[in-house]
Amino acid sequence: MDYRHLFSEDVPSFMRSPVREIFRKVDLNAICSFAGGYPAAVTFPVEDLRTLPGLVLDKYGTKALQYGATQGVPELREAIARRYGVPVSMVQITTSSQQGIDVCTRILADPGDIILTTEPTYLGALQSFKAYRADVRAIGGYSRSESSPVKFIYVIPDFNNPSGETMTLAERERIVALARELDVVIVEDSPYRELRYSGEDVPMIRELAPERTLHLGSFSKIFAPGFRLGWIIGPEELLEQIFVCKQALDLCPPVFDQYLATEFLTSGALDANLVKTKAEYRRRRDLMVSLLEKYMPEGVTWTYPEGGLFLFLTLPEGIDTIEMYDEALSKGVAYVAGSFFFLDGSHRNTMRLNFSFVAEEKMEPGLKLLGEIVKGRL
Amino acid sequence: MDYRHLFSEDVPSFMRSPVREIFRKVDLNAICSFAGGYPAAVTFPVEDLRTLPGLVLDKYGTKALQYGATQGVPELREAIARRYGVPVSMVQITTSSQQGIDVCTRILADPGDIILTTEPTYLGALQSFKAYRADVRAIGGYSRSESSPVKFIYVIPDFNNPSGETMTLAERERIVALARELDVVIVEDSPYRELRYSGEDVPMIRELAPERTLHLGSFSKIFAPGFRLGWIIGPEELLEQIFVCKQALDLCPPVFDQYLATEFLTSGALDANLVKTKAEYRRRRDLMVSLLEKYMPEGVTWTYPEGGLFLFLTLPEGIDTIEMYDEALSKGVAYVAGSFFFLDGSHRNTMRLNFSFVAEEKMEPGLKLLGEIVKGRL
Repeated sequence: MDYRHLFSEDVPSFMRSPVREIFRKVDLNAICSFAGGYPAAVTFPVEDLRTLPGLVLDKYGTKALQYGATQGVPELREAIARRYGVPVSMVQITTSSQQGIDVCTRILADPGDIILTTEPTYLGALQSFKAYRADVRAIGGYSRSESSPVKFIYVIPDFNNPSGETMTLAERERIVALARELDVVIVEDSPYRELRYSGEDVPMIRELAPERTLHLGSFSKIFAPGFRLGWIIGPEELLEQIFVCKQALDLCPPVFDQYLATEFLTSGALDANLVKTKAEYRRRRDLMVSLLEKYMPEGVTWTYPEGGLFLFLTLPEGIDTIEMYDEALSKGVAYVAGSFFFLDGSHRNTMRLNFSFVAEEKMEPGLKLLGEIVKGRL
Repeated sequence: MDYRHLFSEDVPSFMRSPVREIFRKVDLNAICSFAGGYPAAVTFPVEDLRTLPGLVLDKYGTKALQYGATQGVPELREAIARRYGVPVSMVQITTSSQQGIDVCTRILADPGDIILTTEPTYLGALQSFKAYRADVRAIGGYSRSESSPVKFIYVIPDFNNPSGETMTLAERERIVALARELDVVIVEDSPYRELRYSGEDVPMIRELAPERTLHLGSFSKIFAPGFRLGWIIGPEELLEQIFVCKQALDLCPPVFDQYLATEFLTSGALDANLVKTKAEYRRRRDLMVSLLEKYMPEGVTWTYPEGGLFLFLTLPEGIDTIEMYDEALSKGVAYVAGSFFFLDGSHRNTMRLNFSFVAEEKMEPGLKLLGEIVKGRL
């Protein structure tokens, strides 16, 4: 049967994640993969999770297994509100922060509407934006004379995926000024905010412009991604539309998991685990940076991330990381080509390297190999 | 700040669930509520859930806490495929069967496209359809001369929510014939299929027309709704678009919960629990029917459900269940007015009664009270 006449007009704009396509092709455990964005399994609070489920059943009973409120269970919303110093009414729990991006796009963007983003930018966000046929533009590539309306500005201010870079206060203020000038919302995607290994916190955009910021948080990097929980902090009038939309999307976020997260957070276990997680990732970042210094030829540069899971490598002009990819994969090392994170597919001499997931003993052989492959292309 | 100029054109079509709005207003535990569609807490496998999480950690390790495949974890897809006798490639796990409805609508319907439905129909489906600005029509109210394309037919063949009725084989065959004639897909919403208390199974629509049916299943009534897990069984070419769409929606369904469901299902605990669940609900259905016979005045009729969670009451013409609602609530009994389940708001003398959730000792006083309220309106 031919289904093509039945598909929605959005379908041709659906975009496959090049990262997830890589995962389909290779067994990541068999190679040195710097490609994914997965947290390290050693950071998962396995021991806490041996007791948390029983504790949740004792404390909340069958309420933890029943349908819950669309906004999220009150206990978790309150815990998030307390942690970040906002009223409970400004907190919506989401079924993953990817859903947060999706639902913000859903309530704001029609086909052809403009979404502005910094570059390089998160692939999962581009997937959502394009699936709604929004017209995604780099902030620099936008001119005020366009006829389509701008709906929001999308930014990842802390430890950007893919670049690892953090926006300065002045850069954040410029984003806020632009949003005020255009009278649009800012979607502040902040899954790595809690993972700082050095340097000083910079105020969040939502602190600078609470009236127009939808701030997206995630439990994936501070608890475990297998629970698919995130949150949105934002103005009540915007959350009200997200709430109604979410009734139709999935009724409510996973309830049992929300209570696990509540207990993990309020017991102090989250903060204790975060100390260990940050120490682990700091060590890995430092190891990766020192190995890049050791194995990369002259002319290769990289960002120095103060947190998060990634750094971004720039090779000498003329080396094409998409072209180089098959060689790398066949020799046993994986990365994500940097041009995927640019709207126009430019920056073909860049790549994203993840330092959180790869087994530590594979980091040196993997980066040595990558250095040799790059040298072979000079 | 005024956000109205920023909202998508879909937003004015977002529809609040009248059921969830009732829940916002009253404490369901303080009254006799026949309003919700919640499973009984006594059916939740609490004892199994004391051991399942540890078992999942032992057996699957940190894989159970990591990101998973967008299609669902292979172990759960295989378990579903075996249970229902289909190839694994025809199974997509969803983050709730509400998400199943939403994502089917997302890949098929553009604004103005026609979706045909039997009536009365599920409110959560109407919420999804309207949120995409589809033109939802009762099958009987559709004429072949319309200019907009029909994209799919939506049906709840087994123990319909809200009516409790089951489609005969002949009725299912007529749906299939209509779908073939129009060359459209059928979305077969089947969350109650496993909850049959009497009578004989009727073949599923997906068995009659596998090439054009997206069959939606749910763990909410056979495990626990707090886990937000469902599945879609359908043709690979349709699942492929759902797969790409779902990457942008939430990356993957909750992984830990999927492994809990896998173990619950493959260990045989699900079937053992289902025997108890069905005995419990059969008793409640029979109790409700006998109490209706006892307390409802002449002229009131109701459906006799062979399974599921609901029955549908028809009062004498002229009694308006929306008008009657405030009186009922103030006296301590809740239901859902039946006209909400009809596209044109007709059938104002009907109501949906749920027999799974209300505490058993409240059923008699609640239905006695409801009978008196109805008598007062004769």
